[in-house]
Amino acid sequence: MSKPSLPQGTRDFNASVVRKRQFIFSTIQQVFQLYGFEPLETPAMENLDTLMGKYGEEGDKLIFKILNNGLDRPEKHAKAKEDFDKILQGKNVKDLTERALRYDLTIPFARYVAMNHGQLTFPYKRYQMQPVWRADRPQRGRYREFYQCDADVVGSKSLLNEVELVQLYATAFSKLGVPVDIRINNRKILAALAEVCGGADKLTDITIAIDKLDKIGIDKVKEELAQRGLDAAQITLIEKYLFITGTDAEKIDQLKNIIGENELGKNGIEELEYILSFAALPTKNCQLQTDFTLARGLNYYTGTIFEVKAIGVQMGSIGGGGRYDDLTGLFDVPNIPGVGISFGVDRIFDVMEELQLFPEAVQQGTQVLFFNLGDAESKAAFGLMQQLRSRGISAMLYHEQAKFDKQFKFADKKGIANVVVIGSNELEQGICKVKHLASGNEQVLTQQDFAAQWQPA
Amino acid sequence: MSKPSLPQGTRDFNASVVRKRQFIFSTIQQVFQLYGFEPLETPAMENLDTLMGKYGEEGDKLIFKILNNGLDRPEKHAKAKEDFDKILQGKNVKDLTERALRYDLTIPFARYVAMNHGQLTFPYKRYQMQPVWRADRPQRGRYREFYQCDADVVGSKSLLNEVELVQLYATAFSKLGVPVDIRINNRKILAALAEVCGGADKLTDITIAIDKLDKIGIDKVKEELAQRGLDAAQITLIEKYLFITGTDAEKIDQLKNIIGENELGKNGIEELEYILSFAALPTKNCQLQTDFTLARGLNYYTGTIFEVKAIGVQMGSIGGGGRYDDLTGLFDVPNIPGVGISFGVDRIFDVMEELQLFPEAVQQGTQVLFFNLGDAESKAAFGLMQQLRSRGISAMLYHEQAKFDKQFKFADKKGIANVVVIGSNELEQGICKVKHLASGNEQVLTQQDFAAQWQPA
Repeated sequence: MSKPSLPQGTRDFNASVVRKRQFIFSTIQQVFQLYGFEPLETPAMENLDTLMGKYGEEGDKLIFKILNNGLDRPEKHAKAKEDFDKILQGKNVKDLTERALRYDLTIPFARYVAMNHGQLTFPYKRYQMQPVWRADRPQRGRYREFYQCDADVVGSKSLLNEVELVQLYATAFSKLGVPVDIRINNRKILAALAEVCGGADKLTDITIAIDKLDKIGIDKVKEELAQRGLDAAQITLIEKYLFITGTDAEKIDQLKNIIGENELGKNGIEELEYILSFAALPTKNCQLQTDFTLARGLNYYTGTIFEVKAIGVQMGSIGGGGRYDDLTGLFDVPNIPGVGISFGVDRIFDVMEELQLFPEAVQQGTQVLFFNLGDAESKAAFGLMQQLRSRGISAMLYHEQAKFDKQFKFADKKGIANVVVIGSNELEQGICKVKHLASGNEQVLTQQDFAAQWQPA
Repeated sequence: MSKPSLPQGTRDFNASVVRKRQFIFSTIQQVFQLYGFEPLETPAMENLDTLMGKYGEEGDKLIFKILNNGLDRPEKHAKAKEDFDKILQGKNVKDLTERALRYDLTIPFARYVAMNHGQLTFPYKRYQMQPVWRADRPQRGRYREFYQCDADVVGSKSLLNEVELVQLYATAFSKLGVPVDIRINNRKILAALAEVCGGADKLTDITIAIDKLDKIGIDKVKEELAQRGLDAAQITLIEKYLFITGTDAEKIDQLKNIIGENELGKNGIEELEYILSFAALPTKNCQLQTDFTLARGLNYYTGTIFEVKAIGVQMGSIGGGGRYDDLTGLFDVPNIPGVGISFGVDRIFDVMEELQLFPEAVQQGTQVLFFNLGDAESKAAFGLMQQLRSRGISAMLYHEQAKFDKQFKFADKKGIANVVVIGSNELEQGICKVKHLASGNEQVLTQQDFAAQWQPA
């Protein structure tokens, strides 16, 4: 057959990458647990019905659909053919495909809560760390398979949850060693701005335009607002809003001048102030501030919104989230509000690589290689190796008798720090030589002492 | 929309199940690492070319194919339609589908090794723990999405690898607490039996029939052998072979009477004896024995084969594997032999549930619930909670002010063992009450002592 290859936009992860990714996952998982979140896993495939229509028209196109296996059975062909004609007309289909790969973790979570809400105890705090698939055009840093890593609290309107999630971000990034800037805003403040600018119906226009500020700059944002039908006075007000600066207290004062009389605005400001009133963040490497230019694209947010960026490196946001009023309404289960955050694991990985933040210990694989210098020698080595392993030390015996050089080279290539030599002399005397490759240090130990006590440096 | 549901044959895993599964995965992973295996992860989807034709005709039908997203773009429709006509005729297709979900971990591993063999250092010992998907008819214990958990050593013919894998099984099941019976055989012995019975071309017939012995019994196996063209003398010989009993030494003696003169047979027996000659297994809960009735269905095995069953519970094999001559030949990279084993995680889970082997600590979620008894009280509680968390203790603050009863009930439902009460009196005196729910024990501590020193029971 032809040379094997990977599907576009997908990746193999070798040992070094898996270890670093596992460090990120296990650190975040540990913090999720510290904060009282419990795990959930949902299947890779969902019914097409569950996913379609939840991500907008563009999103629907990016969902990977799975061909029904009935197509392998001739009796299904006629119906599938009808369906195929329909799909070409853009209609819904059932016999060709009725399952799809999950596109994010939020809709499967909503589906789970809708299916199980009778059994769940609310507030329900769940975390989920699983891959998702999107038929996006692959490009640098954008993949067709990538992990999402979400925590949500549902069934509670309490702002304490927002406070907790900010702290959770701070704790997780502190444990990862990534210095971060956490920004918060509130959709009610944006809604108030829209009302002050002529009507609630302007909210989407204003949100979409503001969301682009980072990318296109203030002049283009003003152009876009004009195109979207806002007049000069309104645009001036929005510009004033976008140029609010200072400490949080100063910024909130300026904000009050613009939207402080608006009911929604007052409410949004109170919510922000409540969150800011809580205890200081756990680390100096982490700052929290209000950012009224923060909009977050997703329409379902209704309250606090979050965004996290790494400090000292050029990279998009590495985390984000917000409060929503209604998780499961789409599945006919109303009144389940919640708030959630997400960690962008691929970008966190890139940041940690760039800032060289992965601890050296993460890369530790096998710690000891036993040389294989003959049948009897290797049997002795094997016994010692099993004793080391029973003490939790990762070890290997070279798979066949070979020259010293070859075995040294193997240890070197595999990054194994210590080699243990048992040749015929050592075998006879009941000893072994332990060599630390980086330093060249060599110890001679009785086999008994070695097996019972030796520790890798 | 209609009531949401899960696709047939797939499962949600709630917190309790995820925790138990993670215990299994992390235990096995830890043992893989102790034994010098390194992790690999491959994408969920592979090119259809990579997978098709590798699992037999039946297997091909069970591969989940992914619809090309080009179908969402009208300019692709004409070509897709041609392809669709072809798929109905059973021909290969490209515009309708060119990707599929992985069916096992072996072929993606082979694809990886074929693509990267120039960069890999052999022997290459990799482990991989990822889900696979099969369009099998769902039934009890058989799912369309399930995890495989494999370790392989490739690029080495040494029997030390077989020795290692047996030990690895023993160590892993010992750490899981599952008593097991490990059986080994060698395909060369089966091949010798075929030769002694009239020709190497009989190997597949004999293997397929023997593989069914457990399920259909000796009489049906004899019938099947007859149907497959073996004569009475040959069947008598095979029956004699299948009825070999005794200790390993006794069994090998009897085996030698049947196939001891055959070259392949001698070789297979030597290999078994070598493996048995190695050090004893690490636990009493684990037995290793030869089993000449063991065949393993997969055709690509060429040497040692393994199978593991749990002792004391009625269940199919919970592990298996074997040696193969040629991992990557299908991808035009010859001469990479190897040996591998697999853990059946779903069945291991069922065994551990049935024998109640999961340690209680596995289920530990949140350890402490702080009651919320007002604004000032909850802020004090929040500060203490953060100090507990910084000491690695998992804690939660009830999300809103509520009656004692409600908060106790919440702790109870969530299985939280300890509650901390800070009401107005406690706030004033700088103390807190810590109650252990199961025992009813209550401690009164200064907040300072509590934050700095208290440990959950």
